[in-house]
Amino acid sequence: MGSYNEMWQKLNMDLQKHDILCAALPDSFGEIYMTQKNRPDNMNYFNYALAEVHGARIEEIQKSKKNGKKVVGTFCVFVPDEVILAADAVGVGLCSGSQFWVEDGEKVLPRNICPLVKAFMGAKVSRTCPYFQSTDMIVGETTCDAKKKAYEILEEYMPVHVMELPQMKREKDFQEWQDEIKLFIKKIEEFTGNKITVEKLKNSIDLVNKKRRALKRLYDLRKHTPSPISGLDALLVSQVAFVDDPIRFTEKTEELCDELDERIKTMKPNGRKRIMITGTPMSVPNWKIHHIIEGLNAEIVVEETCTGTRYFEKEVFDEGDTIDDLVRNIAERYMNINCACFTPNNDRIDDIIKYAEEYNADGVIYCNLSFCHTYAIEYGKLEKALKENNIPLINIETDYSEEDVGQIRTRVEAFLEMI
Amino acid sequence: MGSYNEMWQKLNMDLQKHDILCAALPDSFGEIYMTQKNRPDNMNYFNYALAEVHGARIEEIQKSKKNGKKVVGTFCVFVPDEVILAADAVGVGLCSGSQFWVEDGEKVLPRNICPLVKAFMGAKVSRTCPYFQSTDMIVGETTCDAKKKAYEILEEYMPVHVMELPQMKREKDFQEWQDEIKLFIKKIEEFTGNKITVEKLKNSIDLVNKKRRALKRLYDLRKHTPSPISGLDALLVSQVAFVDDPIRFTEKTEELCDELDERIKTMKPNGRKRIMITGTPMSVPNWKIHHIIEGLNAEIVVEETCTGTRYFEKEVFDEGDTIDDLVRNIAERYMNINCACFTPNNDRIDDIIKYAEEYNADGVIYCNLSFCHTYAIEYGKLEKALKENNIPLINIETDYSEEDVGQIRTRVEAFLEMI
Ligand code: SF4
Ligand code: SF4
Ligand code: SF4
Ligand code: SF4
Repeated sequence: MGSYNEMWQKLNMDLQKHDILCAALPDSFGEIYMTQKNRPDNMNYFNYALAEVHGARIEEIQKSKKNGKKVVGTFCVFVPDEVILAADAVGVGLCSGSQFWVEDGEKVLPRNICPLVKAFMGAKVSRTCPYFQSTDMIVGETTCDAKKKAYEILEEYMPVHVMELPQMKREKDFQEWQDEIKLFIKKIEEFTGNKITVEKLKNSIDLVNKKRRALKRLYDLRKHTPSPISGLDALLVSQVAFVDDPIRFTEKTEELCDELDERIKTMKPNGRKRIMITGTPMSVPNWKIHHIIEGLNAEIVVEETCTGTRYFEKEVFDEGDTIDDLVRNIAERYMNINCACFTPNNDRIDDIIKYAEEYNADGVIYCNLSFCHTYAIEYGKLEKALKENNIPLINIETDYSEEDVGQIRTRVEAFLEMI
Repeated sequence: MGSYNEMWQKLNMDLQKHDILCAALPDSFGEIYMTQKNRPDNMNYFNYALAEVHGARIEEIQKSKKNGKKVVGTFCVFVPDEVILAADAVGVGLCSGSQFWVEDGEKVLPRNICPLVKAFMGAKVSRTCPYFQSTDMIVGETTCDAKKKAYEILEEYMPVHVMELPQMKREKDFQEWQDEIKLFIKKIEEFTGNKITVEKLKNSIDLVNKKRRALKRLYDLRKHTPSPISGLDALLVSQVAFVDDPIRFTEKTEELCDELDERIKTMKPNGRKRIMITGTPMSVPNWKIHHIIEGLNAEIVVEETCTGTRYFEKEVFDEGDTIDDLVRNIAERYMNINCACFTPNNDRIDDIIKYAEEYNADGVIYCNLSFCHTYAIEYGKLEKALKENNIPLINIETDYSEEDVGQIRTRVEAFLEMI
């Protein structure tokens, strides 16, 4: 990727350190992804998107910036993309799944917090993430303790706006969330200099809904036995969704689905165990658990995570005559995301039971990033509910390091034999 | 304490397990407290209160219950005592500082969360805390991830009402907090069957303010060099405040202060280093850090914690003609508590710098319960600010176990030599 050096330099990146990262990524991608057999041809686009994640896509974003667009970085699926796009800004999901950044994150954060938070802080502190370096404003949220407080540190590096996400889902909270979205609109209008009109907001609602629909179509295809796409490939598609141009992404995902539609016509049962993943997000390049599970000849058919169903389920209703109407629709959709940061969050359990049936899952693997308290505590309730429903479940708590891979493999192997 | 066996049995306690707890507590209290030299005579009441914490005080509470009073348990200084008292209920702080309960807590909670939360869950699960067993309703709050989600589990054992504490301190949040207090009033009126009138609420505001004033007077006395009371003794007074009858507690604390007023007239400088503690709460019987520090011949002169200044600083304004007026006053006072659960929480840093001067502290020791993310992350900002102000600081992260005592002692010793 030598040809991007000049661009990266302009982004004030630590080139030497970034070279180390760039050297490692293709190897692990090659080993994990390119060794898969019989992949859909249309995965080529997503391979390319990943290979060029620090190159061509950044070049594109830089071009948008030259044309006056602002880049807004987010860390949670609660921040409404519709608002970012309606302000003619570029939205990028900055969550990070690389162990590479953890060490630098630990320079400004305690060690015993979630690796996702340490990694994104490390990416900023070390100036080795071109997305972060391209970002003009961060939009955070008060979801978990770790992120909520990490944003205060991030603010020492760049402009940060934090949305206060209610912790419950009563009518009062729904009202408060509408107010937060309106404050966000005001903030982004000021920041970009672009007025968010009813028409623009309707357009962006439509655009994001289409993206959701494409992902939903992909996931619906995975309901077939056998699934026409590996869990690893589906995860890659989801991960690319967070940084790619939304229109192109939707197109490419639909093309992939067209191919999968053909595939399922001729596929024969393969006897593989069908696994649901549930828990914390898996950001690029966190392919650890998928790699282990599918390496054991099982197939992951659905992820109840924020890099899975929580990202695309439910559309924003697009009818309305005023910004207030549309904000209500947006709030409605987002408040129905069932994240463990809410108390209570029993609808998540219902979702998991429903998906287990819809996707015909043989077992559920709960994947929890170390030190994520909300998801860790929620495990107990889910365990009881799944036992009552006779759905097998195991709990894996892990971070981005490779140390526990052997141990996890042994546990998953035993689980697959049991179910 | 054999004579209370019948009462404990009626409270459905696990007597065998409780015996083990009762056997250990007097020993550690004797070793830590009774070996202190030259204690104020009026500490006798607080010694007694501690000795009878599972006995005489529980008997009193049971008597109140027989007279129709409800017992409301809390875990955070954000839950307004004024409301509990105005509904003719008894309020008890159930936060727990004993390692004894951690193991049972880990049966229903992940291991890597804060010991305070594990301990209170363990106390309930094991049926060995007579306060918990006497409690009719728990009032929780959405302060930290660990507590927020633990309340969902607690709800399987007893009635729980959760107050949604805003995560920021904007005008909008202040309004929301007023609404939460009103919802709490409604809830407790229903639960107790007692109407909260303006008069009753004014009375309880007055009562709690008096309690705060007594504690403030105690802390003001500690500003003298040398302090007329040890940090250990002051901590015990604060801890007793959470479970004692508020009127008697105030009286006894004032009597103690009268004695200390006399003491300071004749005290001579003792050359001891003056230490401020800041961080997470220290609930009964968590005397670990105070014991270590004062065992090294330093004196703790102030705690910027919820078992310290955050509990009593700022009074509730008692003027107003309506419940709404008084709720506004209550909200005002409570929203000004500077807990790390808020973002941002810069006023806490200002408090610490102010106290360092007022209490003439030679150094600050940051005490953080393991896995408390918000306080752990906030350390970084405080470190910078205290460096700029030339105030020495160290960070101690610890739990309730005794394993790290030697290591902490060595670090504190080095710190005391340095400052
Ligand atoms: S898990 Fe919760 S906090 Fe994390 S990205 Fe998803 S919605 Fe946001
Ligand atoms: S995985 Fe958990 S701790 Fe980590 S950022 Fe998400 S909600 Fe926070
Ligand atoms: S530290 Fe914060 S959450 Fe804990 S008791 Fe104090 S105010 Fe409540
Ligand atoms: S010490 Fe921290 S983690 Fe523990 S209960 Fe208090 S705020 Fe929560």
